[in-house]
Amino acid sequence: MKKNEVIETMLDHKSIRDYKEEVPSQEEIETIVRAAQQAPFVSQLYSVILTKNRDDHPFDAPLLFTICIDFHKFELIMEKRGWEPVSNDLSIFLFGVQDACYMAQNMVTAGESLSIGSCFLGAAPYKAGRLKEKYDLPEKVFPIVQLAMGYPDEETSTRPRYPMEYVLFEGEYPELTDEMIEDAMDKMDEGYLEQDYYRKLDAKIGLKGDEKDEYTYDDYSWTEHISRKWGQWHESIEEPLEELEKCGFDLLIEDKRE
Amino acid sequence: MKKNEVIETMLDHKSIRDYKEEVPSQEEIETIVRAAQQAPFVSQLYSVILTKNRDDHPFDAPLLFTICIDFHKFELIMEKRGWEPVSNDLSIFLFGVQDACYMAQNMVTAGESLSIGSCFLGAAPYKAGRLKEKYDLPEKVFPIVQLAMGYPDEETSTRPRYPMEYVLFEGEYPELTDEMIEDAMDKMDEGYLEQDYYRKLDAKIGLKGDEKDEYTYDDYSWTEHISRKWGQWHESIEEPLEELEKCGFDLLIEDKRE
Repeated sequence: MKKNEVIETMLDHKSIRDYKEEVPSQEEIETIVRAAQQAPFVSQLYSVILTKNRDDHPFDAPLLFTICIDFHKFELIMEKRGWEPVSNDLSIFLFGVQDACYMAQNMVTAGESLSIGSCFLGAAPYKAGRLKEKYDLPEKVFPIVQLAMGYPDEETSTRPRYPMEYVLFEGEYPELTDEMIEDAMDKMDEGYLEQDYYRKLDAKIGLKGDEKDEYTYDDYSWTEHISRKWGQWHESIEEPLEELEKCGFDLLIEDKRE
Repeated sequence: MKKNEVIETMLDHKSIRDYKEEVPSQEEIETIVRAAQQAPFVSQLYSVILTKNRDDHPFDAPLLFTICIDFHKFELIMEKRGWEPVSNDLSIFLFGVQDACYMAQNMVTAGESLSIGSCFLGAAPYKAGRLKEKYDLPEKVFPIVQLAMGYPDEETSTRPRYPMEYVLFEGEYPELTDEMIEDAMDKMDEGYLEQDYYRKLDAKIGLKGDEKDEYTYDDYSWTEHISRKWGQWHESIEEPLEELEKCGFDLLIEDKRE
């Protein structure tokens, strides 16, 4: 494998959940955001809200960035140019989410290059309406993810990832054989168990209903954890649709297939 | 501004549209994908299809990566574990698109650290059905973006971005004043005009209908170009909804507001 400082910074990525009190400087913050902005974009449909109220942040992180898909600021530009938007909200979303995410990932990497750790918080789309009120977001601004940041106050290891054979496919998508699936599961599960990851976080997801949970932290690992999410959570599509709608993104159309 | 090799690599990002014939090595390709994989993720809901048919690629790029949101491979894992997915397709999409995009952005940066340039191709969601056939994608795999890659055979400049004041907001979203909007427009427009960007690409978007186009490449710039997209394109939400549906992502529910 080729190595350089950039590759090594990426390979060394860890999500941080324990932070020192020291607040990164304004110069560091602006370096991170400026480097992130240079990511490729469709229309720069992003905004970042920064708060520094440590007490109010997950993991008491000194910094919390709320990264938003933002069409509002481009609407204002269109108005100045005498244009009116005609595009549908799903198309705006499909492009805007990329602008926002490419930027967000660069923030993670830029931060780590400055010894500043971070952790994505995935619940933003499910509390978008509340975040909109909290941060006074205009219509057409949707918080896609939050990013806690600060100097790490913990020693952690990098987490495992799928084997290359389960990710990169040349020519076309192959049939995933039992062996490939099991190799991927083993690599993930053994890696997480070795680090005692879920026990340390006390992060086991319970079983709905009265099914008895046969797993302990000795064998509860990544594929079980993630299966419990997708097998039990987010059944209702109305929930995320409503949060999008609160932020001015209307994805509802009548089902024409009836 | 703080500087290091990572920050400088990011700040030096340019999209490349002209490539040398030399094909990056398998070692380089795997380094790029491996480094990209280490990006933070929700459930590793991503897959990457790689093709090397230069003649078939935009800009004759030696490599073309099709980056997909992939729930299929996790469904196979759930099956092995005795779980069935219950989550709605929009929730899967909202998390999967982040997994895929964080990875995609790392691929760009990792490539550039190895002197390998790239260019995102945004049309994938609009031809998802065709890409599904071409690459034999299973259900629940949605191509979100394509990435052309290879050694640059052109000298280009970095493109301008919004001023920090139009991107990073502390505490809450501010009212964007005329001055802020105009500063943002000026920075973008002057930057693109200075580079003669649209003339070089001959990329002017025409006006629909019989409106006379008053702009020449002397004054046609970024905010006009992007306004013509959002002011004329993608009117129909059915189009992206149908492409998602072809790939097994059903976002249609009946409009309950009637």
